[in-house]
Amino acid sequence: MGALRLAALCLAALTTLSQGVTYQPNWASIDSRPLPAWYDQSKLGIFVHWGVFSVPSISSEWFWERWQGEKPDPKVVQFMKDNYRPDFTYGDFGKEFTAEFFDADQWAKIFEASGAKYIVFVSKHHEGYTNWPSKYSFNWNSMDVGPNRDIVGELATAVRKTDLIFGLYHSLFEWFHPLYLQDKANNFTTQDFVARKTMPELFEIVNKYKPEVIWSDGDWEAPDVYWNSTNFIAWLYNESPVKDTVVTNDRWGIGVTCHHGGYLTCMDRYNPGVKQNRKFENAMTIDKGSWGFRRNAYLEDYLTMDELLETLIVTVSCGGNLLVNVGPTKYGMIAPIYEERLRDLGQWMQVNGDGIYGSHPWTYQNDTKNPDVWYTMKADGSSKDVYAFVLKWPTTDVLTLAAPAPTSTTKVTLMGYQAPLNFTKTGSQGVSVQLSEVQYALLPCEWAWTFKLTNIAN
Amino acid sequence: MGALRLAALCLAALTTLSQGVTYQPNWASIDSRPLPAWYDQSKLGIFVHWGVFSVPSISSEWFWERWQGEKPDPKVVQFMKDNYRPDFTYGDFGKEFTAEFFDADQWAKIFEASGAKYIVFVSKHHEGYTNWPSKYSFNWNSMDVGPNRDIVGELATAVRKTDLIFGLYHSLFEWFHPLYLQDKANNFTTQDFVARKTMPELFEIVNKYKPEVIWSDGDWEAPDVYWNSTNFIAWLYNESPVKDTVVTNDRWGIGVTCHHGGYLTCMDRYNPGVKQNRKFENAMTIDKGSWGFRRNAYLEDYLTMDELLETLIVTVSCGGNLLVNVGPTKYGMIAPIYEERLRDLGQWMQVNGDGIYGSHPWTYQNDTKNPDVWYTMKADGSSKDVYAFVLKWPTTDVLTLAAPAPTSTTKVTLMGYQAPLNFTKTGSQGVSVQLSEVQYALLPCEWAWTFKLTNIAN
Amino acid sequence: MGALRLAALCLAALTTLSQGVTYQPNWASIDSRPLPAWYDQSKLGIFVHWGVFSVPSISSEWFWERWQGEKPDPKVVQFMKDNYRPDFTYGDFGKEFTAEFFDADQWAKIFEASGAKYIVFVSKHHEGYTNWPSKYSFNWNSMDVGPNRDIVGELATAVRKTDLIFGLYHSLFEWFHPLYLQDKANNFTTQDFVARKTMPELFEIVNKYKPEVIWSDGDWEAPDVYWNSTNFIAWLYNESPVKDTVVTNDRWGIGVTCHHGGYLTCMDRYNPGVKQNRKFENAMTIDKGSWGFRRNAYLEDYLTMDELLETLIVTVSCGGNLLVNVGPTKYGMIAPIYEERLRDLGQWMQVNGDGIYGSHPWTYQNDTKNPDVWYTMKADGSSKDVYAFVLKWPTTDVLTLAAPAPTSTTKVTLMGYQAPLNFTKTGSQGVSVQLSEVQYALLPCEWAWTFKLTNIAN
Amino acid sequence: MGALRLAALCLAALTTLSQGVTYQPNWASIDSRPLPAWYDQSKLGIFVHWGVFSVPSISSEWFWERWQGEKPDPKVVQFMKDNYRPDFTYGDFGKEFTAEFFDADQWAKIFEASGAKYIVFVSKHHEGYTNWPSKYSFNWNSMDVGPNRDIVGELATAVRKTDLIFGLYHSLFEWFHPLYLQDKANNFTTQDFVARKTMPELFEIVNKYKPEVIWSDGDWEAPDVYWNSTNFIAWLYNESPVKDTVVTNDRWGIGVTCHHGGYLTCMDRYNPGVKQNRKFENAMTIDKGSWGFRRNAYLEDYLTMDELLETLIVTVSCGGNLLVNVGPTKYGMIAPIYEERLRDLGQWMQVNGDGIYGSHPWTYQNDTKNPDVWYTMKADGSSKDVYAFVLKWPTTDVLTLAAPAPTSTTKVTLMGYQAPLNFTKTGSQGVSVQLSEVQYALLPCEWAWTFKLTNIAN
Repeated sequence: MGALRLAALCLAALTTLSQGVTYQPNWASIDSRPLPAWYDQSKLGIFVHWGVFSVPSISSEWFWERWQGEKPDPKVVQFMKDNYRPDFTYGDFGKEFTAEFFDADQWAKIFEASGAKYIVFVSKHHEGYTNWPSKYSFNWNSMDVGPNRDIVGELATAVRKTDLIFGLYHSLFEWFHPLYLQDKANNFTTQDFVARKTMPELFEIVNKYKPEVIWSDGDWEAPDVYWNSTNFIAWLYNESPVKDTVVTNDRWGIGVTCHHGGYLTCMDRYNPGVKQNRKFENAMTIDKGSWGFRRNAYLEDYLTMDELLETLIVTVSCGGNLLVNVGPTKYGMIAPIYEERLRDLGQWMQVNGDGIYGSHPWTYQNDTKNPDVWYTMKADGSSKDVYAFVLKWPTTDVLTLAAPAPTSTTKVTLMGYQAPLNFTKTGSQGVSVQLSEVQYALLPCEWAWTFKLTNIAN
Repeated sequence: MGALRLAALCLAALTTLSQGVTYQPNWASIDSRPLPAWYDQSKLGIFVHWGVFSVPSISSEWFWERWQGEKPDPKVVQFMKDNYRPDFTYGDFGKEFTAEFFDADQWAKIFEASGAKYIVFVSKHHEGYTNWPSKYSFNWNSMDVGPNRDIVGELATAVRKTDLIFGLYHSLFEWFHPLYLQDKANNFTTQDFVARKTMPELFEIVNKYKPEVIWSDGDWEAPDVYWNSTNFIAWLYNESPVKDTVVTNDRWGIGVTCHHGGYLTCMDRYNPGVKQNRKFENAMTIDKGSWGFRRNAYLEDYLTMDELLETLIVTVSCGGNLLVNVGPTKYGMIAPIYEERLRDLGQWMQVNGDGIYGSHPWTYQNDTKNPDVWYTMKADGSSKDVYAFVLKWPTTDVLTLAAPAPTSTTKVTLMGYQAPLNFTKTGSQGVSVQLSEVQYALLPCEWAWTFKLTNIAN
Repeated sequence: MGALRLAALCLAALTTLSQGVTYQPNWASIDSRPLPAWYDQSKLGIFVHWGVFSVPSISSEWFWERWQGEKPDPKVVQFMKDNYRPDFTYGDFGKEFTAEFFDADQWAKIFEASGAKYIVFVSKHHEGYTNWPSKYSFNWNSMDVGPNRDIVGELATAVRKTDLIFGLYHSLFEWFHPLYLQDKANNFTTQDFVARKTMPELFEIVNKYKPEVIWSDGDWEAPDVYWNSTNFIAWLYNESPVKDTVVTNDRWGIGVTCHHGGYLTCMDRYNPGVKQNRKFENAMTIDKGSWGFRRNAYLEDYLTMDELLETLIVTVSCGGNLLVNVGPTKYGMIAPIYEERLRDLGQWMQVNGDGIYGSHPWTYQNDTKNPDVWYTMKADGSSKDVYAFVLKWPTTDVLTLAAPAPTSTTKVTLMGYQAPLNFTKTGSQGVSVQLSEVQYALLPCEWAWTFKLTNIAN
Repeated sequence: MGALRLAALCLAALTTLSQGVTYQPNWASIDSRPLPAWYDQSKLGIFVHWGVFSVPSISSEWFWERWQGEKPDPKVVQFMKDNYRPDFTYGDFGKEFTAEFFDADQWAKIFEASGAKYIVFVSKHHEGYTNWPSKYSFNWNSMDVGPNRDIVGELATAVRKTDLIFGLYHSLFEWFHPLYLQDKANNFTTQDFVARKTMPELFEIVNKYKPEVIWSDGDWEAPDVYWNSTNFIAWLYNESPVKDTVVTNDRWGIGVTCHHGGYLTCMDRYNPGVKQNRKFENAMTIDKGSWGFRRNAYLEDYLTMDELLETLIVTVSCGGNLLVNVGPTKYGMIAPIYEERLRDLGQWMQVNGDGIYGSHPWTYQNDTKNPDVWYTMKADGSSKDVYAFVLKWPTTDVLTLAAPAPTSTTKVTLMGYQAPLNFTKTGSQGVSVQLSEVQYALLPCEWAWTFKLTNIAN
């Protein structure tokens, strides 16, 4: 499916939710809301972690906590000793968040070229610095210190010039905010922080930027009642300017994650490997060790295309979306190693996207005999097509798939390759696809290959 | 009176306020509270303006407003163009507020050497940066950005090692705080800023640092109802940890200044020149053009000792206290030109303080014939002593005072000079003091001279 | 050939030069010196551009000239206006050259992993900043401003722990050095700059770091007589501590380049495409637009592996060495996109290096019929092996090579692939290699493939 | 004498030197040159220490040596640890030497207001940073790093708009220059540093800025032969553009100081207290602890006016000139405490300068009985006037001077006071001046007072 078709589909999806329902501030009611269709159809999103942590740009976006938190990381502590004056504060980094090359349109183009259909941008991470001029974070936001720009606003505008859907990440808690620490010391019997910071901010970003995703995080120390989660989500679903189209996740308080909310994220890099009953998202990183950009990362720290595609395929095969994270530099560039992965991914999606976008888990996820093969499915009325994603090209001239049961009208094609391939049935279930005529030089991709089997019986 | 005596007197004063009264949150009730006695007895205080404005350190502490406010000052705008990158923000200055030489004990010693009896330190100016680690100003305070220190706390501790009384200035409004601007746009019908910022901060500094002065400012755009002024002051007087000793001023809302509150400040550099019925304070600056330190000030911008002493004498003569402002450098020093004025002032107070501390306005303030002479008075039971402050030494051998009516037991002494002086009555009122025997080389001071006349009849 | 074998070979080569010859300071004599054998055998080197230009890190290592030189680049001028105070100087960048992550051993490992056999490091570029603590560049060197380290020294030590050979780039001229500009204004009739700067520096780096390559540059505005070139090279060849093993290039004055000196570089990215009579080096960049790191480069600015390997193969086929440039970041990392190219190159060299290292141009460079095939040759006594580098895998099952004339003992192997391949002679000259049995999944590389034909007749 | 008269006198003096003499490069010949008359007549000059040391601005202008020299000062070492990253270098300070408020015309006006007749500006101190764009200090000068301005040039131009004479300080050695350290290690048997740095710089500043004073320093580690001193001075006297008017001092090598050259400076703060046979200069500082500005100095570190005037008077009385040092801030201001001393000095000179400018030592310097009295003398044909400088006003009505022998036409006046004073002879030598009629309020000055005695016999 081309980008235009999906965009049209998404527009339709965005407007088809029932308008008559009012959700109650409890999980049963909230869980009852159907997930807006665009989300499942999209399959692939881009996560972007950017903030003041991009200034020290080592260790990870958890730099501050690892420097001055409860269990300091000796490497981070040493880095500060080696490179900064003793009284340097984390807040002092803010000035150096210069963002001079930040060009939201360029970012949007790169994200679009990856084949992703939505983005989730970190509006505020646990450090508390807001990437928009919040009324509730005076002089600790991107207009007042550092870039002197409304980063969220610029990116929202740029993204909306493309077919991408715009979403925002938001951290409920802040490691070092004194009001949060006070509530915590009070065993979360007080809610000063939520009342003065979390809630006003969430309302502010939803009303101002109308994100189609609210990706909540930082919930794990306190119960949902403290966070006012169900009340906020009920507002989001009933009254907010994005009430019909917005999706949210499940990180809304102790015991909520992986059980309630919108779609499930469960934990970072959640890739269960078996089909899930409820829609989930595998949020993961190209830099294996960090969500924020690390200046001192080596090549080995980045996923290869083989690893990245396997993750995508397994995730989608099991019913999930993949949210691929990139961390821009403090000066506003998406480093070429990231751009390369994203463009390679996009090239692959150009060829193989028909088996990904709008697909569904099939009866089988992993092939019963060939562990390097994963499946998705599309059904259109009476016909059912199965997509077999082959992670490693066979070392013989035959590809054997044990799961599919072909019909008399079944055809097998290699996506991106011109002609159908010959195959034979192997009993009631299973096919053997002949590869000897495939010319290596004409293969459309270098990594995983998709074999489409039409009109499958099972 | 020596420092020890005043300290003892102040301790007494600090504990003698009636404890039984409860003040109501209205001006009539608040105005009915007697001013704690230590304040009027002290006469001389030091005002200290320090903050992020001390980093650009030109123009004045109003730098930010003059740069980016409603009517920008072209010189300030040009300064920024000439010396900073175009996207530089005011918040970016925070990091440079290094305070590396700030030694609160040294400051306290210098302030004490000036003869002052209390200090008023800017805890937060209109820029909103708090010089203490406020819970309500995350990453825009002196612990989180810049010094990495609790400046208010260090200074409070140091000041209390001396005989000085510790007070705090606090700005109700903040030029650029978005919540304030929102309330203002709502015609002050909303109070978000007051509820989330002003009130929590005021409670925080009173409870944490127990200042004996709350010097309010920044009130002029909104009514007292908006600021919640009477409620706060009622709490301050009835329940706060400093309820018996604290004084406050009159800058608590439109129409309040110069009419209600504690003592009156009316306007900056308020020096009416005639006796006032209500206690007032003349808050003024040694740098004639700025409260904050100006790196580019010239000598001519600083008051001379003659000017400073005249201001003190006229102010005290009319019933006021003088609050003399100094602006430290961003690196934490009180520049030598300030230190010189303060130490010269202190040297003068050592000699002449008996006519200042604990004095009262006399029947006459300015002499009826000699415009260079001002008076104070002290009465002790049946006896009344008058102090005549002579701003310019006479060009003849005789000092003529028209106002005092001497009695038979009247003696005239020049303070700091060993022997009494001969004088003659000039009719029923007035004396002529013989100066010919005064040896210039033995004069105790270089500027104003105090003649004490004991047992005056009028 | 594995790394160890080449290292042994190089050691031998380094000691076999005739020791009896004394070279005269004229080009005829200098040109008569045989090039030390290690150089031609090595084929692949790494060029490293690092300096203060890595701080602004946009445009190219010519940043300063493009900002303030004769023909300013409007983009560079605008960048400075947008991001720095008006009086900012190029020298002010020096402090920001922090190099905090510079780990010479890590660099050396990455360079070694690329398959290169020598490195050429920029000791000083046209900006004049020396990456070693030069006696002749006080406070404009890496010990005095910025890193506070002897970068050349650290790198020399690290490189020598590996099998790599260490060389240095050095710019004769400096754009803005006042003594150079003075000599230039004098039409190069004076030599103050050469006497005080160029010569002392060259002697200093040779004596101190004993580089096996002196890669001269920046010669083009003045004749070799001005630069004292032949005298210096005669010293280098006759008396220097590296006299027996050092190589130098040809950039030693107007009219010299591409004609005299050691090996020829002619111009940047010199890749003539036909066999050269004299040894040359193709110095080129992975970032197509810059030798120094550009923070704002996009993926499209970097060569793909296909492009890089084609350049290597064509260059070596015609008798040249390839010198591949990387530009580290100001903080001392080789960005992952560079590391990826280098490691991919090294992986390819592991498989195909036998056709590169120690090889010679064959009778044919480019195949006479197949433009995607290039050749090298190795002769060992009576036997001659030819290596055919195939840039694009054939789209049929047969690879046709028109140039080689096989003998009865000729075997054809695909390097890195286990079994010999069947082939047929096509007339007196030419072979057809059968590819149908080659399993794609077992191919050793993704890009160019090397077919080795043993015992070739022509 | 007013400024205009002296200026005219100086112009005359500047042109009256014999033009026919050629000096030889040996001390006997150099010492034989008459000192240009303007110098002795001027009496008072201003010394200005400004450079990169003004950036750290603590300890003194010897900051670098005290940080990283042979015997580090623990306080300086600690300051660096407390406030800078571990790899910070002295060169890194250069960028922060911003000089944004440097206004050479304002400086010149303040210097002129002090009553001084010449200035000596530090063109380069021991750190090696040149305050002009030297050809011999690339990227370690005020055009290339920091101010981006020709400071010496701007100041020369501004000073020449006034009546002040312009001179330059220059340090022969540089603590950390590697060529100097090399020469030193060679026991000064090599002269690389002098040939490449010291001499070219000296010729450069003399030819470019035509200073009337060359104030040499930094000579003490090496003999004059090493420094090439006599050759340079011979050139300065014979051929330089200032050959007729220039003066130099005596700091030109081991054993030379206090013996040879132009005028003698002997050591810092040289104030012998007895009449000298050869012209000397007392170079001293208002900040008792430093020549460069110290951000952390207290008031007690600055000389009082009493101390400063006593130093001036004693120095001039003994035949010396006084060179009063000020240290501007890194941002280019003369701090108000310095400005105050200079303006107070100038006010005193306005009143008393007639006894200073163009005066000569008298038979007596210090009064034989009154240690607080010092003398100068002016003789005009047959008449001889003596100036008695009284440092402390008498505590009686009579001033007794033991040294002067009045004649019948002797008159005694207090300079700045309208009427002559009565006096009586006390034997053959000595006068008693009656002070009882002097009105304190009419005294022209607050510190030292000058009594002029005309037509004195001895």
